[in-house]
Amino acid sequence: MQEKLELACRIAKSYFDRGMGSGTTGNLSFMHDGMIYITAGGTCFGFLTPGDFAAVPLRETDPSVLTAADSEEQAILAAALKKKPSKELPLHRLAYDRLQKDGIDGGAVIHTHATFSVLWSCLPDLDPEDCVPDHTPYLRMKMGSCGLIPYEKPGSPALFEAFARGVEGKYGWLLSHHGLVTCGKDLMEAFGRSEELEESCKVAWMLRKAGL
Amino acid sequence: MQEKLELACRIAKSYFDRGMGSGTTGNLSFMHDGMIYITAGGTCFGFLTPGDFAAVPLRETDPSVLTAADSEEQAILAAALKKKPSKELPLHRLAYDRLQKDGIDGGAVIHTHATFSVLWSCLPDLDPEDCVPDHTPYLRMKMGSCGLIPYEKPGSPALFEAFARGVEGKYGWLLSHHGLVTCGKDLMEAFGRSEELEESCKVAWMLRKAGL
Amino acid sequence: MQEKLELACRIAKSYFDRGMGSGTTGNLSFMHDGMIYITAGGTCFGFLTPGDFAAVPLRETDPSVLTAADSEEQAILAAALKKKPSKELPLHRLAYDRLQKDGIDGGAVIHTHATFSVLWSCLPDLDPEDCVPDHTPYLRMKMGSCGLIPYEKPGSPALFEAFARGVEGKYGWLLSHHGLVTCGKDLMEAFGRSEELEESCKVAWMLRKAGL
Amino acid sequence: MQEKLELACRIAKSYFDRGMGSGTTGNLSFMHDGMIYITAGGTCFGFLTPGDFAAVPLRETDPSVLTAADSEEQAILAAALKKKPSKELPLHRLAYDRLQKDGIDGGAVIHTHATFSVLWSCLPDLDPEDCVPDHTPYLRMKMGSCGLIPYEKPGSPALFEAFARGVEGKYGWLLSHHGLVTCGKDLMEAFGRSEELEESCKVAWMLRKAGL
Repeated sequence: MQEKLELACRIAKSYFDRGMGSGTTGNLSFMHDGMIYITAGGTCFGFLTPGDFAAVPLRETDPSVLTAADSEEQAILAAALKKKPSKELPLHRLAYDRLQKDGIDGGAVIHTHATFSVLWSCLPDLDPEDCVPDHTPYLRMKMGSCGLIPYEKPGSPALFEAFARGVEGKYGWLLSHHGLVTCGKDLMEAFGRSEELEESCKVAWMLRKAGL
Repeated sequence: MQEKLELACRIAKSYFDRGMGSGTTGNLSFMHDGMIYITAGGTCFGFLTPGDFAAVPLRETDPSVLTAADSEEQAILAAALKKKPSKELPLHRLAYDRLQKDGIDGGAVIHTHATFSVLWSCLPDLDPEDCVPDHTPYLRMKMGSCGLIPYEKPGSPALFEAFARGVEGKYGWLLSHHGLVTCGKDLMEAFGRSEELEESCKVAWMLRKAGL
Repeated sequence: MQEKLELACRIAKSYFDRGMGSGTTGNLSFMHDGMIYITAGGTCFGFLTPGDFAAVPLRETDPSVLTAADSEEQAILAAALKKKPSKELPLHRLAYDRLQKDGIDGGAVIHTHATFSVLWSCLPDLDPEDCVPDHTPYLRMKMGSCGLIPYEKPGSPALFEAFARGVEGKYGWLLSHHGLVTCGKDLMEAFGRSEELEESCKVAWMLRKAGL
Repeated sequence: MQEKLELACRIAKSYFDRGMGSGTTGNLSFMHDGMIYITAGGTCFGFLTPGDFAAVPLRETDPSVLTAADSEEQAILAAALKKKPSKELPLHRLAYDRLQKDGIDGGAVIHTHATFSVLWSCLPDLDPEDCVPDHTPYLRMKMGSCGLIPYEKPGSPALFEAFARGVEGKYGWLLSHHGLVTCGKDLMEAFGRSEELEESCKVAWMLRKAGL
């Protein structure tokens, strides 16, 4: 548990340090003992600490207090239950639902405004079922095709509805004019996919500019 | 107080490490107990320590020694009163005046030569009231529109006069051929705005080159 | 031994931090006491520790347990023998064979998906014997000419066969649409060559875009 | 002394971390008690330690052992006298001679292959007396105009002769198809100038590509 929180912070800081998650944008979450631990609203990937996570049940209608494994985890959970989750929480819940359809119980979800993912998402005429070209083989090997979610205001019900319509069958998406979302069976898998997605968008952007 | 100084150093270092504030350019400040704490002249964002801040009163005509909350703060203040503030101090004072009109007592101000803000500020025909396009929604959500201040020599009275003419109604500005300025109710808000501004200029620059 | 593992981790982290080895791509190895120590499958350059290396004999047909110099090294080796090596291990073995032809017993091999090496490797009509131009003199001074290996699926026998055909006479290669490989008499030499190769591809890419 | 060595290492690492000095390229030096302390041959800016400096007299014909201020400095000097200096040492000596003509006794010199300085130095038709345009005012304010040294092989007598011909009247130079050199009265001044020079080349390169 503490280990997962620390890995999440390390991942977040690495996005920030490498220009893939600036300021107070971006949020990430993982499941633990049936609860979602998600970065609290207004936190910054660059300065995140294990105390910056809010705990919420998987579904809005679930009870919000669960029993943790031991007293240490109980204390972490009690503090996290008092935090306000990122306003993009519904995106995370939809991604966890989607993972469950693959038989993945738990997992992790990452959302960040990585520059080249944002740039690529601003292009017209992208294929909504497969919006990032595979100049290198790794994105397809690690994540399959990338979905495209049409633009809606960040944090708005319209965005969550658009995401619900496009969430099936993918492990990664570009939110048009906004950023990337990836999910996986654990933090490292969601992280590895986000990295491949951003790198693929970077390579695609640069080759496109070179007319290739 | 010590906490604010440490956060300011962390923010400064993060600009430096990510290519948003090189060499000895850039300066930042925050208000504490009625005094401005601003990076001293000639300091480097990459190597900043809490001892590198100068303390000055909010207005040039105010008395320059105030009582601090306790003996620790008194010692910090005494040392800071002996430091020479950044030559861009008048820009900071103008931004604090502007924040007061919104009822914000205190706050923080950041000035840095982040590359894409500089590049965008070199373009001809920018709208002085709204000089950065919103390809993504966050800049407008966090900061509103960005003002443009015409070029004047760094540190010159002419620059401060130009800034005074353009300061109203905004929380962020591009100084033409020079860099960005943002302000907010605290360091994190000013920081978050500077990050969105630079990222928006980066996205705008790259989309412009792609003809979009 | 411990020192070499720590240097390897530091080199790996430096690629990650500087955008030259994202996610869980990339692998590196060095020889010690007749064994190859190579990053285990699925490891991330950004979070690598000395415990993340697998030990394997130089040739597949060699016995896989050797005597280490002292009990500390014995313990490291015993743990490393249980790890699963990166799936690109055959590339490394081919590079060590090639180094032996120069009389280098031991050495080090690095494979990473550095962005500009990947971009340059996607260009059509590259010379397979000398695929990176020398706008600056250092690549040729440190590594000689760079070979080009035609595209085959990562980790596939076809890739290893293609590499075997192109491995002779070089210390560095671009794998088409994939990444770079360099080798040298020790980690620092392989590292220095990879750095020059990526920087040369970056300069070549940018000058090419400028029509130079 | 120890402080200067530590600052030099910190500066070197900051170049490396920010993509301004990769691999084992780049070298820097400072004067202390009449001796030049320069990075040893083959060192890497990213992994530099205070023990990686060679000490040499200012002029080749000067005696190479001098008395240090105290026993700690004596020990550092004794070790440094045994190290092999960077092969670009003659460039540094020429820059110290040039500083002396301004009455600066001592000082510091930095040479690095920062990407945009290299790129800009590859352009045809640059003015050898003023080779970097001033889209922003800081380079001229901090360093004056930048000289251009025609291409000669790194470390060759021809390069040192070319540098000797162009060294006068400047504090910074681009070595054509090679990198930048700056000097100043101390490490921070040479550092600040190198930062402005690289940032100016970056801005100039990007504006040039945008046709501005």
